Amino acid sequence: MITPSSDLGEFGLIRRYFQEHEAQRTAALRDQGGVVLGIGDDAALLRLPEGTDLVAAVDTLVAGRHFPSGTCAHSIGYRALAVNLSDLAAMGATPAWATLALTMPAAEAQWLQEFCAGLFDIAQQHGVLLVGGDTTRGPLTVSVQILGSVPRGAALRRDGAKPGDVLAVSGTLGDSGAGLAFASAAPGAVDRRGARAAAVDALIRRFDYPTPRVQFGIAARHLASAAMDVSDGLVGDLPKLAAASGVHAHVDVERLPLSAALRATVSEPQAREYALAAGDDYELLLAASPANYPKLEAAARQLNLTLSIIGELSSGSGVSWSADGVACMPASSGFDHFGQASTQITV
Amino acid sequence: MITPSSDLGEFGLIRRYFQEHEAQRTAALRDQGGVVLGIGDDAALLRLPEGTDLVAAVDTLVAGRHFPSGTCAHSIGYRALAVNLSDLAAMGATPAWATLALTMPAAEAQWLQEFCAGLFDIAQQHGVLLVGGDTTRGPLTVSVQILGSVPRGAALRRDGAKPGDVLAVSGTLGDSGAGLAFASAAPGAVDRRGARAAAVDALIRRFDYPTPRVQFGIAARHLASAAMDVSDGLVGDLPKLAAASGVHAHVDVERLPLSAALRATVSEPQAREYALAAGDDYELLLAASPANYPKLEAAARQLNLTLSIIGELSSGSGVSWSADGVACMPASSGFDHFGQASTQITV
Repeated sequence: MITPSSDLGEFGLIRRYFQEHEAQRTAALRDQGGVVLGIGDDAALLRLPEGTDLVAAVDTLVAGRHFPSGTCAHSIGYRALAVNLSDLAAMGATPAWATLALTMPAAEAQWLQEFCAGLFDIAQQHGVLLVGGDTTRGPLTVSVQILGSVPRGAALRRDGAKPGDVLAVSGTLGDSGAGLAFASAAPGAVDRRGARAAAVDALIRRFDYPTPRVQFGIAARHLASAAMDVSDGLVGDLPKLAAASGVHAHVDVERLPLSAALRATVSEPQAREYALAAGDDYELLLAASPANYPKLEAAARQLNLTLSIIGELSSGSGVSWSADGVACMPASSGFDHFGQASTQITV
Repeated sequence: MITPSSDLGEFGLIRRYFQEHEAQRTAALRDQGGVVLGIGDDAALLRLPEGTDLVAAVDTLVAGRHFPSGTCAHSIGYRALAVNLSDLAAMGATPAWATLALTMPAAEAQWLQEFCAGLFDIAQQHGVLLVGGDTTRGPLTVSVQILGSVPRGAALRRDGAKPGDVLAVSGTLGDSGAGLAFASAAPGAVDRRGARAAAVDALIRRFDYPTPRVQFGIAARHLASAAMDVSDGLVGDLPKLAAASGVHAHVDVERLPLSAALRATVSEPQAREYALAAGDDYELLLAASPANYPKLEAAARQLNLTLSIIGELSSGSGVSWSADGVACMPASSGFDHFGQASTQITV
């Protein structure tokens, strides 16, 4: 009989950390989870609820690019699924399954254990089952493919916004960008005296553990006219929504929702800069008719989520910005993996 | 209006090489392709045919690990989709959509153009539409997620083989492994005189451009009792099928199908070694009842594909091997990304 030569072989790894864990969860969730066949065959066999469409997205995290090299494995696993869940949230979809393509320099049991703990933590929160994966050796790269469903015709798209709609954003912006800056700062460079310490920690936590707005996306299905998630920064993302919908968008920069932690740690201009262009917020950007907006706000309130109007849509194209009534032009176009990462704002 | 600062920005790249290309194909195939919403929103919206289950798999190629660093971009793009199509073939599934997570060191227009030409070449052959993607900067890693469908209850699984079934394999084994060895050999180290030159080229081509047996997988739906693809080498893969089905598998090594090109370039023992353990064949390994086997063979013949019986299944567990009537034990357990790559066979 042929057996894998080592427990640290690829197959041993997958069995030990993914297959056994997920077999239990899949068995427990089989009836509601729609998994006909999970990890362990050439592909997964999955059953969508009747009357729904499949929603699919993929997002990759590269070490040193999407998170600092020293980031703990728990956060990497959590974040890899969270950013994908955010894409489904932006469609108003119900997440169901994920596959994982994990490339790592070496097979370290402790690293994998922590990575899986983070991944399965958020998977559990959202009822997501891991149904397939591929483990390869190479520079640390985590690619998650997320699959979910949405009732036919109910998906939130980028192209449904109308002139006259208000433009709103969930939660607060800029925290994650500031958190990354603090996490990446040289030791001792960050002032952590008194109340600032807790605020800095809260911001770093917002980067390490983003909260995808899945439940709010589902609640917004028949209330918002368009939605997308803010992952690359508002100045990078909003033009895409405006272009897809064929409308002009105007943002009042002073209305951008800023957290107490962000206000406590950086100056007002810096806070606005982070909120406009730093990326990694994973909040939802939505357009809604003035008639629907109060219902959308009520739905957010039920989920203990703030919703803030930041501007409005009109006939035309492109995006314009004003700060305290004065027209301005953010210098950056948001986070672009192959472009320049500039986050200046000129007021 | 905010626009990406450079055509080489991430968004420009995706638009130029993927979105525009696929928008045309998606429009042309919309009715049959089931794409409600393709590239350009937070996620793709896809509609499965009635009465089918979703089939999902993911496979990653890492430069220097799954292909030599100098491999041409056209082959990398082709191969990244081909190896995923092979997983669907092994389920008897009809491929429909793919998402791409592409990590690359720099955005080079010519490289991307060739990569896409290879990817879309095989996508076109199998009616697959690219519905989403993520482009990031980092060491070259290509992860493709493939999505397809299969009529409910008709999927080929690994766990359906029965004692008394014959064990068969499509095409020939070992070509790709030998091709990789030739492609990786030092310049001048490979004897390319006369007829050998064409044979060596044919073997390298088998590595660079694997042929997923999609049509045969579909034809085998109600004829084979179990199936999987041979991607990690027979000695690595067969034990998985035997274990999943709860049977013992015996292989007569002298029955392994070897191509003329392989026989013309390496010795018989070397050829068997490649066929047993080198991996990257992407042929289908199937179990079938003796009653169904002739129909399976006829289905293969209709597709101009050879099918060879290489052994049989019996009650018990594990795998045994014999060569020319003498029991033997292949030394390698197949290609394992975190294990040792040994391909010796002891007869």
